[in-house]
Amino acid sequence: MSQQIANVAVNTQANVYFDGKCISHTITLQDGTRKSVGVILPSTLTFNTGAPEVMETVAGACEVKLAGQNNWTRYAAGQRFDVPANSSFEIKVEGEPYHYICHFG
Amino acid sequence: MSQQIANVAVNTQANVYFDGKCISHTITLQDGTRKSVGVILPSTLTFNTGAPEVMETVAGACEVKLAGQNNWTRYAAGQRFDVPANSSFEIKVEGEPYHYICHFG
Repeated sequence: MSQQIANVAVNTQANVYFDGKCISHTITLQDGTRKSVGVILPSTLTFNTGAPEVMETVAGACEVKLAGQNNWTRYAAGQRFDVPANSSFEIKVEGEPYHYICHFG
Repeated sequence: MSQQIANVAVNTQANVYFDGKCISHTITLQDGTRKSVGVILPSTLTFNTGAPEVMETVAGACEVKLAGQNNWTRYAAGQRFDVPANSSFEIKVEGEPYHYICHFG
């Protein structure tokens, strides 16, 4: 888990989802790769993916149910989960905010 | 107003204030200067300053009342306001989220 990501360009306008329950800033690495750093406030949300995503937990914890799964799996700081392309996942955050890095592709 | 700030290191854990009404990510420039990029959701909040701050509006709008002032002043995209050190300001956001860059000074 990275506390800081160096040598990036950061978009100054954030991405605001679900009335602010999820807020992220897009960053672009020097090789053109885009990621986002974000926060999910306590809530249960459903996200759809275009590109595949890897969600890396920076702080806090969440429970996740991928499309087609019946059970929730918990991820805490340092843990990550993969989401396939053109799919969806439910994410549940309770108590403290969930901080993440989203890697695309 | 900068749509992107290049050559920075971004902190992956966000700063979460007022139960998530304000969320920012700290960035560090190559010369060591720290700034933050953030969002304030619709609300009226009071912030205290240590260092002096320049708040630069990226998107959305706010109304601001500095400590000792009686009137609200409106700032929209591209506009900025200065806050002295060891002071405070009230900020009111209505409707859409307010996106900003905070320069410490």
